[in-house]
Amino acid sequence: MSFCAAVLTLYPEMFPGHLGISLAGRALERGDWSLETVQIRDFATDRHRTVDDTPAGGGAGMVMRADILARAIDHAAPQGDPRPKLLMSPRGKPLSQARVRQLASGPGAVIVCGRFEGVDQRVIEARGLEEVSIGDYILSGGEPAALVLLDAVVRLLPGVMGNEASGTEESFEGGLLEHPHFTRPQEWEGRAIPEVLTSGNHAKVAAWRREQAERLTRERRPDLLAVRLPD
Amino acid sequence: MSFCAAVLTLYPEMFPGHLGISLAGRALERGDWSLETVQIRDFATDRHRTVDDTPAGGGAGMVMRADILARAIDHAAPQGDPRPKLLMSPRGKPLSQARVRQLASGPGAVIVCGRFEGVDQRVIEARGLEEVSIGDYILSGGEPAALVLLDAVVRLLPGVMGNEASGTEESFEGGLLEHPHFTRPQEWEGRAIPEVLTSGNHAKVAAWRREQAERLTRERRPDLLAVRLPD
Repeated sequence: MSFCAAVLTLYPEMFPGHLGISLAGRALERGDWSLETVQIRDFATDRHRTVDDTPAGGGAGMVMRADILARAIDHAAPQGDPRPKLLMSPRGKPLSQARVRQLASGPGAVIVCGRFEGVDQRVIEARGLEEVSIGDYILSGGEPAALVLLDAVVRLLPGVMGNEASGTEESFEGGLLEHPHFTRPQEWEGRAIPEVLTSGNHAKVAAWRREQAERLTRERRPDLLAVRLPD
Repeated sequence: MSFCAAVLTLYPEMFPGHLGISLAGRALERGDWSLETVQIRDFATDRHRTVDDTPAGGGAGMVMRADILARAIDHAAPQGDPRPKLLMSPRGKPLSQARVRQLASGPGAVIVCGRFEGVDQRVIEARGLEEVSIGDYILSGGEPAALVLLDAVVRLLPGVMGNEASGTEESFEGGLLEHPHFTRPQEWEGRAIPEVLTSGNHAKVAAWRREQAERLTRERRPDLLAVRLPD
Protein backbone atom coordinates (compact mmCIF):
# COMPACT_ATOMS: atom_id res chain seq x y z
CA MET A 1 0.00 0.00 0.00
CA SER A 2 1.44 3.36 -0.97
CA PHE A 3 1.05 6.58 1.01
CA CYS A 4 -2.36 8.17 0.32
CA ALA A 5 -2.82 11.86 1.02
CA ALA A 6 -6.23 13.53 0.99
CA VAL A 7 -6.25 17.32 1.27
CA LEU A 8 -9.42 19.21 2.23
CA THR A 9 -9.23 22.77 0.99
CA LEU A 10 -11.07 25.71 -0.53
CA TYR A 11 -8.26 25.92 -3.12
CA PRO A 12 -7.77 22.48 -4.70
CA GLU A 13 -6.02 24.21 -7.63
CA MET A 14 -3.03 24.84 -5.33
CA PHE A 15 -2.29 21.08 -5.47
CA PRO A 16 -0.12 19.25 -6.35
CA GLY A 17 1.82 22.53 -6.89
CA HIS A 18 5.55 21.93 -6.45
CA LEU A 19 4.77 18.34 -5.48
CA GLY A 20 3.97 17.69 -9.14
CA ILE A 21 7.54 18.59 -10.19
CA SER A 22 10.94 16.90 -9.84
CA LEU A 23 11.35 13.85 -7.58
CA ALA A 24 7.99 14.14 -5.77
CA GLY A 25 6.21 14.64 -9.08
CA ARG A 26 7.82 11.63 -10.74
CA ALA A 27 6.99 9.53 -7.67
CA LEU A 28 3.37 10.74 -7.89
CA GLU A 29 3.21 9.70 -11.56
CA ARG A 30 4.71 6.30 -10.74
CA GLY A 31 2.10 5.79 -8.01
CA ASP A 32 4.64 5.71 -5.15
CA TRP A 33 2.15 7.98 -3.41
CA SER A 34 -1.24 9.45 -4.24
CA LEU A 35 -2.92 12.79 -3.70
CA GLU A 36 -6.65 13.46 -3.65
CA THR A 37 -8.08 16.93 -3.13
CA VAL A 38 -11.52 17.54 -1.66
CA GLN A 39 -13.24 20.89 -2.20
CA ILE A 40 -14.80 21.70 1.17
CA ARG A 41 -17.28 24.00 -0.56
CA ASP A 42 -18.87 20.96 -2.24
CA PHE A 43 -20.25 20.03 1.18
CA ALA A 44 -22.07 23.29 1.80
CA THR A 45 -25.84 23.07 1.93
CA ASP A 46 -27.01 26.46 0.65
CA ARG A 47 -26.99 27.74 -2.89
CA HIS A 48 -24.23 30.26 -2.10
CA ARG A 49 -22.05 27.31 -1.02
CA THR A 50 -21.23 29.05 2.26
CA VAL A 51 -18.60 27.35 4.42
CA ASP A 52 -18.04 29.95 7.14
CA ASP A 53 -19.88 32.30 9.43
CA THR A 54 -19.09 35.10 11.90
CA PRO A 55 -17.38 34.14 15.18
CA ALA A 56 -19.57 33.52 18.21
CA GLY A 57 -18.71 36.24 20.71
CA GLY A 58 -17.76 38.69 17.93
CA GLY A 59 -14.42 39.73 16.49
CA ALA A 60 -12.65 39.94 13.13
CA GLY A 61 -12.57 37.27 10.43
CA MET A 62 -14.78 34.31 9.72
CA VAL A 63 -14.88 30.82 11.24
CA MET A 64 -15.23 27.63 9.24
CA ARG A 65 -18.44 25.83 10.16
CA ALA A 66 -18.24 22.50 12.04
CA ASP A 67 -21.15 20.88 10.21
CA ILE A 68 -19.88 21.58 6.68
CA LEU A 69 -16.28 20.63 7.43
CA ALA A 70 -17.37 17.43 9.21
CA ARG A 71 -19.30 16.36 6.11
CA ALA A 72 -16.19 16.88 3.99
CA ILE A 73 -14.04 14.94 6.47
CA ASP A 74 -16.53 12.07 6.69
CA HIS A 75 -16.55 11.88 2.90
CA ALA A 76 -12.73 11.85 2.61
CA ALA A 77 -12.19 9.52 5.56
CA PRO A 78 -15.19 7.29 6.33
CA GLN A 79 -15.23 5.56 9.73
CA GLY A 80 -12.42 3.05 9.98
CA ASP A 81 -10.06 4.98 7.72
CA PRO A 82 -6.72 4.31 9.43
CA ARG A 83 -5.07 7.58 8.36
CA PRO A 84 -4.34 10.32 10.91
CA LYS A 85 -6.45 13.45 10.39
CA LEU A 86 -4.38 16.61 10.57
CA LEU A 87 -5.39 20.27 10.72
CA MET A 88 -2.71 22.71 9.62
CA SER A 89 -2.82 25.49 12.22
CA PRO A 90 -0.44 27.90 13.95
CA ARG A 91 -1.97 26.69 17.25
CA GLY A 92 -0.76 23.17 16.56
CA LYS A 93 2.15 21.11 17.78
CA PRO A 94 5.30 22.13 15.91
CA LEU A 95 6.09 19.69 13.11
CA SER A 96 9.26 17.70 13.79
CA GLN A 97 11.33 15.37 11.65
CA ALA A 98 10.31 12.55 14.02
CA ARG A 99 6.61 13.16 13.25
CA VAL A 100 7.42 13.41 9.52
CA ARG A 101 9.11 10.02 9.73
CA GLN A 102 6.12 8.49 11.55
CA LEU A 103 3.73 9.83 8.94
CA ALA A 104 5.93 8.51 6.11
CA SER A 105 5.85 5.02 7.58
CA GLY A 106 2.04 5.08 7.88
CA PRO A 107 -0.84 4.65 5.40
CA GLY A 108 -1.15 8.35 4.56
CA ALA A 109 -2.81 11.45 5.97
CA VAL A 110 -6.05 13.37 5.72
CA ILE A 111 -5.05 17.01 5.84
CA VAL A 112 -7.50 19.82 6.54
CA CYS A 113 -6.37 23.25 5.39
CA GLY A 114 -7.97 25.68 7.80
CA ARG A 115 -8.62 29.31 7.34
CA PHE A 116 -6.47 30.85 10.00
CA GLU A 117 -9.24 33.04 11.32
CA GLY A 118 -10.26 29.65 12.63
CA VAL A 119 -12.17 26.42 12.42
CA ASP A 120 -15.05 25.69 14.79
CA GLN A 121 -13.52 23.98 17.82
CA ARG A 122 -16.26 21.34 17.94
CA VAL A 123 -15.23 19.71 14.68
CA ILE A 124 -11.60 19.56 15.85
CA GLU A 125 -12.74 17.62 18.92
CA ALA A 126 -15.51 15.55 17.36
CA ARG A 127 -13.34 14.32 14.49
CA GLY A 128 -10.12 14.06 16.50
CA LEU A 129 -8.12 16.45 14.33
CA GLU A 130 -4.43 16.67 15.22
CA GLU A 131 -3.40 20.31 14.97
CA VAL A 132 0.01 20.68 13.33
CA SER A 133 2.05 23.87 12.97
CA ILE A 134 4.95 24.19 10.55
CA GLY A 135 6.36 27.23 12.35
CA ASP A 136 5.70 30.37 14.37
CA TYR A 137 4.45 32.60 11.56
CA ILE A 138 1.08 33.24 9.97
CA LEU A 139 0.21 32.03 6.47
CA SER A 140 -2.66 32.96 4.19
CA GLY A 141 -4.17 29.53 4.81
CA GLY A 142 -3.29 25.94 5.54
CA GLU A 143 -2.42 25.11 1.93
CA PRO A 144 1.26 26.20 1.89
CA ALA A 145 1.71 24.34 5.19
CA ALA A 146 0.13 21.17 3.79
CA LEU A 147 2.45 21.34 0.76
CA VAL A 148 5.48 21.64 3.06
CA LEU A 149 4.36 18.76 5.26
CA LEU A 150 3.77 16.53 2.24
CA ASP A 151 7.11 17.51 0.70
CA ALA A 152 8.89 16.47 3.91
CA VAL A 153 7.00 13.17 4.05
CA VAL A 154 7.17 12.24 0.38
CA ARG A 155 10.95 12.52 0.17
CA LEU A 156 11.19 9.76 2.80
CA LEU A 157 8.91 7.31 0.98
CA PRO A 158 10.61 4.20 -0.42
CA GLY A 159 11.93 4.79 -3.91
CA VAL A 160 11.44 8.55 -4.01
CA MET A 161 14.96 9.80 -3.35
CA GLY A 162 16.99 6.64 -3.08
CA ASN A 163 20.16 7.18 -1.13
CA GLU A 164 20.14 10.93 -1.65
CA ALA A 165 18.17 11.53 1.54
CA SER A 166 20.06 9.42 4.00
CA GLY A 167 23.10 11.57 4.78
CA THR A 168 21.39 14.83 5.66
CA GLU A 169 18.73 13.00 7.54
CA GLU A 170 20.96 11.31 10.03
CA SER A 171 22.94 14.43 10.61
CA PHE A 172 19.83 16.45 11.49
CA GLU A 173 18.31 13.73 13.58
CA GLY A 174 21.47 13.60 15.66
CA GLY A 175 20.02 16.79 17.18
CA LEU A 176 22.70 19.06 15.73
CA LEU A 177 22.69 21.50 12.83
CA GLU A 178 24.72 20.39 9.87
CA HIS A 179 28.41 21.26 9.57
CA PRO A 180 29.51 23.63 6.77
CA HIS A 181 30.01 22.18 3.29
CA PHE A 182 32.69 22.86 0.71
CA THR A 183 33.41 21.69 -2.80
CA ARG A 184 35.64 22.61 -5.74
CA PRO A 185 37.09 24.99 -6.75
CA GLN A 186 39.81 24.60 -4.13
CA GLU A 187 40.28 28.36 -4.00
CA TRP A 188 37.62 30.94 -4.80
CA GLU A 189 37.77 34.73 -4.34
CA GLY A 190 40.82 34.24 -2.12
CA ARG A 191 39.01 31.76 0.11
CA ALA A 192 40.37 28.21 0.38
CA ILE A 193 38.66 25.01 1.46
CA PRO A 194 39.75 24.25 5.08
CA GLU A 195 42.90 22.13 4.86
CA VAL A 196 41.62 19.33 7.06
CA LEU A 197 38.93 18.51 4.47
CA THR A 198 41.49 17.85 1.77
CA SER A 199 43.94 16.03 4.07
CA GLY A 200 42.54 12.58 3.28
CA ASN A 201 42.48 11.84 7.02
CA HIS A 202 38.96 10.54 7.55
CA ALA A 203 39.09 10.58 11.33
CA LYS A 204 40.21 14.22 11.35
CA VAL A 205 37.49 15.14 8.85
CA ALA A 206 34.84 13.49 11.01
CA ALA A 207 36.13 15.21 14.15
CA TRP A 208 36.21 18.61 12.44
CA ARG A 209 32.65 18.19 11.16
CA ARG A 210 31.36 17.15 14.56
CA GLU A 211 33.09 20.12 16.20
CA GLN A 212 31.66 22.53 13.61
CA ALA A 213 28.16 21.08 13.98
CA GLU A 214 28.36 21.49 17.75
CA ARG A 215 29.67 25.04 17.46
CA LEU A 216 26.94 26.06 15.00
CA THR A 217 24.22 24.49 17.14
CA ARG A 218 25.54 26.21 20.27
CA GLU A 219 25.64 29.57 18.49
CA ARG A 220 22.37 29.39 16.61
CA ARG A 221 20.10 26.91 18.33
CA PRO A 222 21.00 26.39 21.98
CA ASP A 223 17.37 25.25 22.36
CA LEU A 224 18.23 22.05 20.46
CA LEU A 225 21.08 21.26 22.86
CA ALA A 226 18.87 21.89 25.88
CA VAL A 227 16.58 18.99 25.05
CA ARG A 228 19.36 16.46 24.37
CA LEU A 229 20.15 13.79 26.88
CA PRO A 230 23.55 14.09 28.53
CA ASP A 231 26.24 12.02 26.79
CA MET B 1 8.08 50.88 -4.54
CA SER B 2 6.41 47.52 -4.19
CA PHE B 3 7.97 44.41 -2.66
CA CYS B 4 10.31 42.73 -5.18
CA ALA B 5 11.19 39.09 -4.68
CA ALA B 6 13.91 37.33 -6.66
CA VAL B 7 14.18 33.57 -6.22
CA LEU B 8 17.32 31.67 -7.25
CA THR B 9 16.48 28.05 -7.92
CA LEU B 10 17.09 24.99 -10.05
CA TYR B 11 13.27 24.66 -10.38
CA PRO B 12 11.86 28.00 -11.56
CA GLU B 13 8.73 26.14 -12.71
CA MET B 14 7.77 25.73 -9.02
CA PHE B 15 7.01 29.47 -8.92
CA PRO B 16 4.70 31.29 -8.41
CA GLY B 17 2.90 28.03 -7.45
CA HIS B 18 0.19 28.73 -4.88
CA LEU B 19 1.32 32.37 -4.81
CA GLY B 20 -0.27 32.76 -8.24
CA ILE B 21 -3.72 31.87 -6.85
CA SER B 22 -6.24 33.67 -4.63
CA LEU B 23 -5.26 36.85 -2.77
CA ALA B 24 -1.50 36.61 -3.35
CA GLY B 25 -2.08 35.86 -7.02
CA ARG B 26 -4.41 38.79 -7.55
CA ALA B 27 -1.94 41.05 -5.75
CA LEU B 28 0.82 39.76 -8.04
CA GLU B 29 -1.29 40.56 -11.11
CA ARG B 30 -2.06 44.05 -9.78
CA GLY B 31 1.66 44.67 -9.21
CA ASP B 32 1.37 44.96 -5.41
CA TRP B 33 4.46 42.76 -5.39
CA SER B 34 6.69 41.17 -8.02
CA LEU B 35 8.43 37.84 -8.41
CA GLU B 36 11.44 37.10 -10.58
CA THR B 37 12.96 33.65 -10.83
CA VAL B 38 16.60 33.06 -11.71
CA GLN B 39 17.70 29.65 -12.98
CA ILE B 40 21.00 29.00 -11.19
CA ARG B 41 21.96 26.55 -13.93
CA ASP B 42 22.14 29.43 -16.41
CA PHE B 43 25.32 30.54 -14.61
CA ALA B 44 27.18 27.28 -15.01
CA THR B 45 30.25 27.43 -17.20
CA ASP B 46 30.49 23.95 -18.71
CA ARG B 47 28.37 22.46 -21.43
CA HIS B 48 26.68 20.05 -18.99
CA ARG B 49 25.54 23.12 -17.00
CA THR B 50 26.92 21.59 -13.79
CA VAL B 51 26.10 23.48 -10.57
CA ASP B 52 27.35 21.06 -7.93
CA ASP B 53 30.26 18.83 -7.07
CA THR B 54 31.19 16.21 -4.47
CA PRO B 55 31.79 17.39 -0.88
CA ALA B 56 35.37 18.16 0.14
CA GLY B 57 36.25 15.60 2.81
CA GLY B 58 33.86 13.02 1.36
CA GLY B 59 30.36 11.96 2.29
CA ALA B 60 26.90 11.60 0.75
CA GLY B 61 25.18 14.08 -1.52
CA MET B 62 26.42 16.96 -3.61
CA VAL B 63 27.36 20.52 -2.69
CA MET B 64 26.35 23.58 -4.69
CA ARG B 65 29.42 25.36 -6.03
CA ALA B 66 30.34 28.77 -4.63
CA ASP B 67 31.49 30.22 -7.93
CA ILE B 68 28.36 29.34 -9.92
CA LEU B 69 25.94 30.42 -7.20
CA ALA B 70 27.83 33.68 -6.66
CA ARG B 71 27.45 34.51 -10.35
CA ALA B 72 23.71 33.96 -10.12
CA ILE B 73 23.47 36.09 -6.96
CA ASP B 74 25.53 38.91 -8.48
CA HIS B 75 23.23 38.87 -11.49
CA ALA B 76 20.02 38.96 -9.42
CA ALA B 77 21.33 41.49 -6.90
CA PRO B 78 24.14 43.68 -8.25
CA GLN B 79 26.19 45.62 -5.69
CA GLY B 80 24.07 48.22 -3.95
CA ASP B 81 20.86 46.20 -4.17
CA PRO B 82 19.23 47.03 -0.83
CA ARG B 83 17.35 43.75 -0.47
CA PRO B 84 18.37 41.19 2.15
CA LYS B 85 19.80 38.00 0.67
CA LEU B 86 18.32 34.89 2.25
CA LEU B 87 19.29 31.23 1.99
CA MET B 88 16.53 28.80 2.90
CA SER B 89 18.26 26.16 5.05
CA PRO B 90 17.45 23.91 8.02
CA ARG B 91 20.64 25.30 9.62
CA GLY B 92 19.20 28.80 9.60
CA LYS B 93 17.59 30.99 12.22
CA PRO B 94 13.96 29.92 12.70
CA LEU B 95 11.60 32.21 10.80
CA SER B 96 9.45 34.30 13.15
CA GLN B 97 6.45 36.52 12.55
CA ALA B 98 8.63 39.47 13.63
CA ARG B 99 11.13 38.73 10.81
CA VAL B 100 8.23 38.27 8.37
CA ARG B 101 6.93 41.69 9.35
CA GLN B 102 10.39 43.27 8.88
CA LEU B 103 10.73 41.73 5.45
CA ALA B 104 7.23 42.90 4.45
CA SER B 105 8.12 46.49 5.34
CA GLY B 106 11.34 46.38 3.29
CA PRO B 107 12.11 46.57 -0.44
CA GLY B 108 11.92 42.82 -1.07
CA ALA B 109 14.17 39.79 -0.77
CA VAL B 110 16.64 37.80 -2.81
CA ILE B 111 15.99 34.18 -1.87
CA VAL B 112 18.42 31.37 -2.63
CA CYS B 113 16.89 27.89 -2.64
CA GLY B 114 19.67 25.58 -1.55
CA ARG B 115 20.00 21.91 -2.08
CA PHE B 116 19.96 20.59 1.43
CA GLU B 117 22.97 18.42 0.93
CA GLY B 118 24.51 21.86 1.14
CA VAL B 119 25.82 25.05 -0.39
CA ASP B 120 29.54 25.84 -0.31
CA GLN B 121 30.11 27.76 2.92
CA ARG B 122 32.31 30.34 1.19
CA VAL B 123 29.48 31.81 -0.88
CA ILE B 124 27.32 32.11 2.24
CA GLU B 125 30.04 34.19 3.86
CA ALA B 126 31.25 36.11 0.81
CA ARG B 127 27.75 37.21 -0.24
CA GLY B 128 26.43 37.66 3.30
CA LEU B 129 23.57 35.20 2.95
CA GLU B 130 21.19 35.12 5.91
CA GLU B 131 20.29 31.48 6.57
CA VAL B 132 16.58 31.10 7.36
CA SER B 133 14.81 27.93 8.50
CA ILE B 134 11.04 27.54 8.37
CA GLY B 135 11.08 24.63 10.84
CA ASP B 136 12.89 21.60 12.24
CA TYR B 137 12.21 19.18 9.41
CA ILE B 138 13.94 18.37 6.13
CA LEU B 139 12.49 19.36 2.76
CA SER B 140 13.41 18.21 -0.73
CA GLY B 141 14.92 21.65 -1.37
CA GLY B 142 14.59 25.31 -0.49
CA GLU B 143 11.69 25.92 -2.86
CA PRO B 144 8.77 24.90 -0.61
CA ALA B 145 10.37 26.97 2.17
CA ALA B 146 10.70 30.02 -0.10
CA LEU B 147 7.03 29.70 -1.09
CA VAL B 148 6.02 29.61 2.58
CA LEU B 149 8.19 32.60 3.47
CA LEU B 150 6.77 34.62 0.59
CA ASP B 151 3.20 33.63 1.45
CA ALA B 152 3.71 34.90 5.01
CA VAL B 153 5.25 38.15 3.77
CA VAL B 154 2.85 38.86 0.90
CA ARG B 155 -0.28 38.65 3.05
CA LEU B 156 1.08 41.57 5.11
CA LEU B 157 1.73 43.85 2.13
CA PRO B 158 -0.53 46.89 1.84
CA GLY B 159 -3.70 46.13 -0.09
CA VAL B 160 -3.27 42.35 -0.22
CA MET B 161 -5.65 41.20 2.50
CA GLY B 162 -7.17 44.44 3.77
CA ASN B 163 -8.49 44.08 7.29
CA GLU B 164 -8.70 40.31 7.10
CA ALA B 165 -5.17 39.91 8.41
CA SER B 166 -5.23 42.18 11.40
CA GLY B 167 -7.12 40.14 14.00
CA THR B 168 -5.16 36.91 13.87
CA GLU B 169 -1.96 38.81 13.62
CA GLU B 170 -2.26 40.69 16.87
CA SER B 171 -3.42 37.62 18.71
CA PHE B 172 -0.38 35.60 17.67
CA GLU B 173 2.03 38.45 18.25
CA GLY B 174 0.78 38.75 21.80
CA GLY B 175 2.93 35.65 22.32
CA LEU B 176 -0.02 33.32 22.93
CA LEU B 177 -1.73 30.72 20.78
CA GLU B 178 -5.19 31.68 19.60
CA HIS B 179 -8.27 30.86 21.66
CA PRO B 180 -10.79 28.34 20.25
CA HIS B 181 -13.33 29.60 17.70
CA PHE B 182 -17.01 28.80 17.34
CA THR B 183 -19.73 29.76 14.91
CA ARG B 184 -23.26 28.70 13.97
CA PRO B 185 -24.99 26.29 14.23
CA GLN B 186 -25.56 26.92 17.95
CA GLU B 187 -25.77 23.19 18.55
CA TRP B 188 -24.10 20.49 16.46
CA GLU B 189 -23.86 16.76 17.15
CA GLY B 190 -24.94 17.44 20.72
CA ARG B 191 -22.19 20.02 21.23
CA ALA B 192 -23.19 23.60 22.05
CA ILE B 193 -21.25 26.84 21.68
CA PRO B 194 -19.94 27.83 25.16
CA GLU B 195 -22.62 30.02 26.77
CA VAL B 196 -20.32 32.91 27.55
CA LEU B 197 -19.78 33.52 23.82
CA THR B 198 -23.47 34.06 23.19
CA SER B 199 -24.04 36.06 26.38
CA GLY B 200 -23.49 39.41 24.70
CA ASN B 201 -21.19 40.39 27.59
CA HIS B 202 -18.10 41.66 25.78
CA ALA B 203 -15.90 41.86 28.89
CA LYS B 204 -16.70 38.26 29.79
CA VAL B 205 -16.05 37.12 26.22
CA ALA B 206 -12.66 38.86 26.22
CA ALA B 207 -11.74 37.37 29.61
CA TRP B 208 -12.76 33.86 28.50
CA ARG B 209 -10.73 34.11 25.30
CA ARG B 210 -7.67 35.34 27.16
CA GLU B 211 -7.97 32.52 29.68
CA GLN B 212 -8.36 29.92 26.92
CA ALA B 213 -5.39 31.32 24.99
CA GLU B 214 -3.24 31.15 28.11
CA ARG B 215 -4.38 27.63 28.91
CA LEU B 216 -3.70 26.39 25.36
CA THR B 217 -0.28 28.02 25.31
CA ARG B 218 0.63 26.54 28.69
CA GLU B 219 -0.47 23.08 27.57
CA ARG B 220 0.98 23.07 24.07
CA ARG B 221 3.77 25.62 23.89
CA PRO B 222 5.26 26.38 27.30
CA ASP B 223 8.34 27.47 25.33
CA LEU B 224 6.43 30.56 24.14
CA LEU B 225 5.63 31.55 27.73
CA ALA B 226 9.22 31.07 28.82
CA VAL B 227 10.48 33.87 26.58
CA ARG B 228 7.82 36.42 27.61
CA LEU B 229 8.69 39.22 29.94
CA PRO B 230 7.02 39.05 33.36
CA ASP B 231 3.80 41.08 33.55
